[in-house]
Amino acid sequence: MQNIDLVNRDPNNINDHIGVEFEDILAEPDGAHSIDCVWKASYCCFNFWKNFWYKLATLCCGICIAAEWGCEFASIAFTHVWFITPLFKVLEIECGCLKKFYGMCVHCCLDPCCESVGLMCNAFKKE
Amino acid sequence: MQNIDLVNRDPNNINDHIGVEFEDILAEPDGAHSIDCVWKASYCCFNFWKNFWYKLATLCCGICIAAEWGCEFASIAFTHVWFITPLFKVLEIECGCLKKFYGMCVHCCLDPCCESVGLMCNAFKKE
Amino acid sequence: MQNIDLVNRDPNNINDHIGVEFEDILAEPDGAHSIDCVWKASYCCFNFWKNFWYKLATLCCGICIAAEWGCEFASIAFTHVWFITPLFKVLEIECGCLKKFYGMCVHCCLDPCCESVGLMCNAFKKE
Repeated sequence: MQNIDLVNRDPNNINDHIGVEFEDILAEPDGAHSIDCVWKASYCCFNFWKNFWYKLATLCCGICIAAEWGCEFASIAFTHVWFITPLFKVLEIECGCLKKFYGMCVHCCLDPCCESVGLMCNAFKKE
Repeated sequence: MQNIDLVNRDPNNINDHIGVEFEDILAEPDGAHSIDCVWKASYCCFNFWKNFWYKLATLCCGICIAAEWGCEFASIAFTHVWFITPLFKVLEIECGCLKKFYGMCVHCCLDPCCESVGLMCNAFKKE
Repeated sequence: MQNIDLVNRDPNNINDHIGVEFEDILAEPDGAHSIDCVWKASYCCFNFWKNFWYKLATLCCGICIAAEWGCEFASIAFTHVWFITPLFKVLEIECGCLKKFYGMCVHCCLDPCCESVGLMCNAFKKE
């Protein structure tokens, strides 16, 4: 609770693509201006209904959803830290061995051929 | 209400492509000029009817439409903030794992072959 | 009415391609000159009839046509400001999400392969 920032609620800018301010959605170019009071009323209505529904939805579901995501990410973190990362380490070691062996075979078979064919291409070499 | 600008109603220039001023629509080149009073009357008529219909339409529907968009964007913001962004975070973590595993396999199989074939291309190497 | 310019009636040069001056249409090269008085009369006739018909046509229909375009552009502005631009904003948000998801899949599948094949191209590297 010590470092929660109530003003800037997206410090890592992960939801910056969701621009839902009035001026991102509705805008009148020069030459098409509605009556001042209509424009003002539109602004108020837009903001009122946007805030009303968003605040209502978050009031009803926000806390539960946050709790669910908390459980979900706890299980993901647990699985990854305690199983998947150590498993990858095992795989990495085994894979390194396999690659070394397999690579030895491949190099043994292909290298002479490739070198020979490479001689043919020497003709194109820029001196 | 505090920061609504009644003069510049498109601060982010999102509707700049809608140029509906008289001089954007009607223009007489040199050599084809109508009588002065006809041109003046055209200008007045154009502006009168454009403003009349635009102001009437916005007066009738503008406020309702703004309210509807408010509700719409409240629901979009809610869905994205509380479901889609966290879901992407989960996907990102899983995808990172999958990529690591898949990459290990691909590197294990392809790397030796590619290295060998690379020998063939040595001929093209610039010294 | 305040800023209508009766001399330059095409400030944005949208109809500059319509050159209907006498010298844009009729011109005699060196070696093909008609009698002076014929050329003068042609000049007068051309201008008289061009101006006569253009001024008559604009006098009869200009004002009505301008009024109709006023109505037309009012409706276009209304549709774009209040429906199309907000709809595009919705599409943009959804599209951004889709792009992120699709990009994650593509990077996951293609990145390891491309890295391996890149080894093969090392031969072309400039030292």
